[in-house]
Amino acid sequence: MNVRHALVTAANPRQRTLPLQTLIDRDGVGRSALEIVLREAAGAGIEEFVVVICPGDQAAYAEAAGDLRSRVTFAEQSTPRGYGDAILCARDAIGDQPFLHLVGDHLHLSDTTATCARQLLDIAAAEKTPVSAVQPTRENQITSYGAIGGKLLGGDTPLYQIESVLEKPTPTIAEQELIVPGMRAGFYLCFFGLHVLDAEIFSLLEAAQQAAPDAPLGLSPALHALASRRRYLALNIAGRRYDIGADYGLLNAQLALSLGGRDRDLVLTQIVELLAQTGR
Amino acid sequence: MNVRHALVTAANPRQRTLPLQTLIDRDGVGRSALEIVLREAAGAGIEEFVVVICPGDQAAYAEAAGDLRSRVTFAEQSTPRGYGDAILCARDAIGDQPFLHLVGDHLHLSDTTATCARQLLDIAAAEKTPVSAVQPTRENQITSYGAIGGKLLGGDTPLYQIESVLEKPTPTIAEQELIVPGMRAGFYLCFFGLHVLDAEIFSLLEAAQQAAPDAPLGLSPALHALASRRRYLALNIAGRRYDIGADYGLLNAQLALSLGGRDRDLVLTQIVELLAQTGR
Repeated sequence: MNVRHALVTAANPRQRTLPLQTLIDRDGVGRSALEIVLREAAGAGIEEFVVVICPGDQAAYAEAAGDLRSRVTFAEQSTPRGYGDAILCARDAIGDQPFLHLVGDHLHLSDTTATCARQLLDIAAAEKTPVSAVQPTRENQITSYGAIGGKLLGGDTPLYQIESVLEKPTPTIAEQELIVPGMRAGFYLCFFGLHVLDAEIFSLLEAAQQAAPDAPLGLSPALHALASRRRYLALNIAGRRYDIGADYGLLNAQLALSLGGRDRDLVLTQIVELLAQTGR
Repeated sequence: MNVRHALVTAANPRQRTLPLQTLIDRDGVGRSALEIVLREAAGAGIEEFVVVICPGDQAAYAEAAGDLRSRVTFAEQSTPRGYGDAILCARDAIGDQPFLHLVGDHLHLSDTTATCARQLLDIAAAEKTPVSAVQPTRENQITSYGAIGGKLLGGDTPLYQIESVLEKPTPTIAEQELIVPGMRAGFYLCFFGLHVLDAEIFSLLEAAQQAAPDAPLGLSPALHALASRRRYLALNIAGRRYDIGADYGLLNAQLALSLGGRDRDLVLTQIVELLAQTGR
């Protein structure tokens, strides 16, 4: 899959201001969280972005996109009818192209020289099939994420064939249904907030919406249906995700960027000074 | 002076999104920087706020004001003609009342149980005269601030009678003109971003504007004129200012709030984990 489009969701009414928050990136440059997310994708070869927003947010998001503004198309989600519905709102703008999907309020920091987006796009290009980034996640945290069950494939990369997808499972249900042979006990493979998908996901979401027009539309059930229809992979990505909507998520993301970046020593010095000033 | 009004400036085009940034306050609650600033003033007895903004920013600022939204009036600065001009834009909304002036992109953390706003308002009430908060500031940093010269008054509080005010002086000029007997060598008293003023400042700003209608209008020259006309004091405040527009200013402010607040241990744990993950 040669992926040139990205679909970014940022229409959750409780989280719509998060991508507009300012952070200092690894190179010491102040940018919105949105611009940091878009730049990572652009660096991995994405040329066109579709950003799904709440009605009325376009001006603020266009400004937050910075230098990439001219490559961004906006799609509005008129009513908050779920994550899957937000993705469907981008259908017309994305068309039949495969696309990278990322959420506007997560930053991804790679543990290698290849960004997380690049790692995932390389797999999609080699395997010619949809693929989601995942990470082993402790049992007590899986109720916050979508999680998968499946089988490890042979080969150099930690790649799994997905057999089932469940949204925010309880540990009991995960233990029964999300079996991944070889995983460390008490850990499950949870979504990382990065997926390479294609137009089939729109068809599956639309079918789910028609079957229950009044219910909120999730993404995980459609991904579960995708796994039952065709080869759909998961890559255990070498990196870390930072949800800036979590408690102290913005602080944590900023510290991760700074402590892994150019100004590590400067920021460490500030922390030590503050610890001295605020010591009890 | 019984102060019930506050004038908050947030119209600098390069800094207008700063007060909208989200921080976690000392009690662990997510709030905009603007709301944190307004709440400190409200806690010290301020009932009505006038916030000077760029045209078009009212909706975002009203939302960022949170629970205090109903107490906020907005005044627009139509063109960026300087800090003094921004203050003049609030003249009609403030009227003849004395007022607390604070800048929308600075947070103030007190070293005592009384907030910084409370410390300053208490002095204004006792002395019945305009008063600005100041802090001893190292010579190499004074080119970023307004600075004062004057004399220490007797009494329990570190209170000075202001004789001169200079905006962003060079160390050479400061050494000649900003003399404060008793100050440690190499230190000057610089503004902290908190002032109690009254309607006279509007008259002085207007006179300066009429004298040079095309020049940017600063605040410091008008404060210098104020000091030559009446008793105008400076309080060496027990606290620290955090300019969220400075390099890593937002991070620094967040760390100061967190390390001085309820979640100190939680945030310290996160820092240590990140240091381990990002170690070189």
